[in-house]
Amino acid sequence: MKSDSPGEAAAIPTDQARNRPGASARPRIVLLVPPTRVPLMFTPDALDALARLGQVVRADGTTDEIAADLPELLEGADVAITGWGAPPIPAELFGYRLRFVAHAAGSVKRLVPPEVVERGVVVCHAATIIADAVCEYTIALILMGLRRPHEMAAAMAAGADWRSAGYTEPRTLAGRVVGVIGAGYVGRKVINLLRAFEAQVILVDPFAGDDIGVPRLSLEEAFRQAEILTVHAPVTPATERMIRAEHLALLRDGALFINVARSRLVDSDALLAELRQGRLWAALDVFDEEPLSVSDPLRSLPNVLVTPHAAGFTRDTYARQGMTMVEEIGRHLRGEPLRYRVAPDRYTLMA
Amino acid sequence: MKSDSPGEAAAIPTDQARNRPGASARPRIVLLVPPTRVPLMFTPDALDALARLGQVVRADGTTDEIAADLPELLEGADVAITGWGAPPIPAELFGYRLRFVAHAAGSVKRLVPPEVVERGVVVCHAATIIADAVCEYTIALILMGLRRPHEMAAAMAAGADWRSAGYTEPRTLAGRVVGVIGAGYVGRKVINLLRAFEAQVILVDPFAGDDIGVPRLSLEEAFRQAEILTVHAPVTPATERMIRAEHLALLRDGALFINVARSRLVDSDALLAELRQGRLWAALDVFDEEPLSVSDPLRSLPNVLVTPHAAGFTRDTYARQGMTMVEEIGRHLRGEPLRYRVAPDRYTLMA
Repeated sequence: MKSDSPGEAAAIPTDQARNRPGASARPRIVLLVPPTRVPLMFTPDALDALARLGQVVRADGTTDEIAADLPELLEGADVAITGWGAPPIPAELFGYRLRFVAHAAGSVKRLVPPEVVERGVVVCHAATIIADAVCEYTIALILMGLRRPHEMAAAMAAGADWRSAGYTEPRTLAGRVVGVIGAGYVGRKVINLLRAFEAQVILVDPFAGDDIGVPRLSLEEAFRQAEILTVHAPVTPATERMIRAEHLALLRDGALFINVARSRLVDSDALLAELRQGRLWAALDVFDEEPLSVSDPLRSLPNVLVTPHAAGFTRDTYARQGMTMVEEIGRHLRGEPLRYRVAPDRYTLMA
Repeated sequence: MKSDSPGEAAAIPTDQARNRPGASARPRIVLLVPPTRVPLMFTPDALDALARLGQVVRADGTTDEIAADLPELLEGADVAITGWGAPPIPAELFGYRLRFVAHAAGSVKRLVPPEVVERGVVVCHAATIIADAVCEYTIALILMGLRRPHEMAAAMAAGADWRSAGYTEPRTLAGRVVGVIGAGYVGRKVINLLRAFEAQVILVDPFAGDDIGVPRLSLEEAFRQAEILTVHAPVTPATERMIRAEHLALLRDGALFINVARSRLVDSDALLAELRQGRLWAALDVFDEEPLSVSDPLRSLPNVLVTPHAAGFTRDTYARQGMTMVEEIGRHLRGEPLRYRVAPDRYTLMA
């Protein structure tokens, strides 16, 4: 563990800080991300901005080593910052003082126990930032499935005859029925973009509000009607392995199935068996075992596009994740309204 | 040449038709598309609908054979239908009677001489229908250039290690500066979609109105500022080979260059030389010689995605092109406002 020298003045005037319950002269901010992963999410500018907000303690070592150091690291902490590679924080380490966690990535449920959130600990995360990257990737995969530029390009690169290189069943997204499963941060952004393409969106989400403005259907009905299905649900007891052989069988020939969310939403054996029939085209970015084994049969199916859990990663969103959480910590310390807080009543339903 | 039997009643009551100048009892509609290409653009439903509008004469043979038959085919014709494979119609074949051409594709300038349009012949075309297909393809190529799912998938299929299969410079479209060259049917649709992705669009089009709502820049300035450049201009004396080595040199390293419009907008030798440097990534769907030679060096550059003039082709838009023109002919014959008319003052500026 190393402590950044205070150096610059804190953003909070000392008197005001002293008036906040549990706050000492300078707030103590503990960064629980392994040093090797810090530059991925935090630019030098973001780390400078963080140092201006308080006394920053940076964890050292691997995820496991940081986990072992947690009691010492979090002693007297006002704010904890997590992100990729940070260890789960046990409930007993949240005292009367540590009431705020900023997660510079998307899925935070694994790191902060739900009972702690119920007791009023505030959790913020960068899921909406990552959503941009995931959403654009989803649209890319849908358009690739409909038009196959990559297959045509591979044929052209291999010296194919011009006509035989063409894809014979190209389809527009405009006018097509697209089933979106899950209207969280990503699902909503995907829906908005699909509407810009003038696709006909149908939604499966028992918890979504009526403000989304697209028809909501049962899972079965969505698989029956949609020509494109894209999964954006969290894994919960209600959603785990909810997509089974009988659903996949309802998809029409030539339908597209996209999963950049979580493999555990789908019965993976049933999916593999269905994809082996060659009736469907699929783009899969998530798998039960990651990294995906070199011998995994999905890698060699011609109707499946396999990518290495890349949907949420862009160099833009990485950096914005960290900076957004630094800014959110600033708002918290100044007592301003938060912008990226996880709604406590949605916490257990989230990814 | 064969004539469809009248069979069904014309949509126009005989008396009304007789009152229209130059119209006989049933309007004579001549389809100048080679029979082999007709099913591509005209579904059986569209041909049935056409037969209800008048006496339909369908040309026979190849493009050249139809060209030779034109004087006979067009004698007494009220409406000519063109499309892929139809021959150019010489100005002298437009008399006082043939005043209407419906083109079931996009680029019609080559088929109907501008002086004929100036003399008041009405030309309609399906460019806005094709624009959907071209526009979606353009967005697909941009997202592929930013995220490279196809490269990751090829690596995964080839058994690559999970980490090494990942693309190391993924970027979001959100927030990126995209230069759009040309605000015709396709360019405007591309701009609208790019805005839905929250990209920063800049436009090069000396003839565009101010209603588009994006900054207009010079060609040089667009190449200097944009990280993504996509070309949607027509070929005119002012635009032919307008993109030259000095423009391409202004693009930053890692920029994307997309051309699904016309290769003659670009100095092709300069483009090849620039792409050989490996500084840029390009997606090219159009070439000076089509089909592209099997030995063309563009096919083997790893930073170039080459597809066989596929941007405008989807099975949805094919069929809509024909049906849309049949419906437009119906509007013309009933004296209703047209929806797909080419504005005469834009005719020479178009593709």
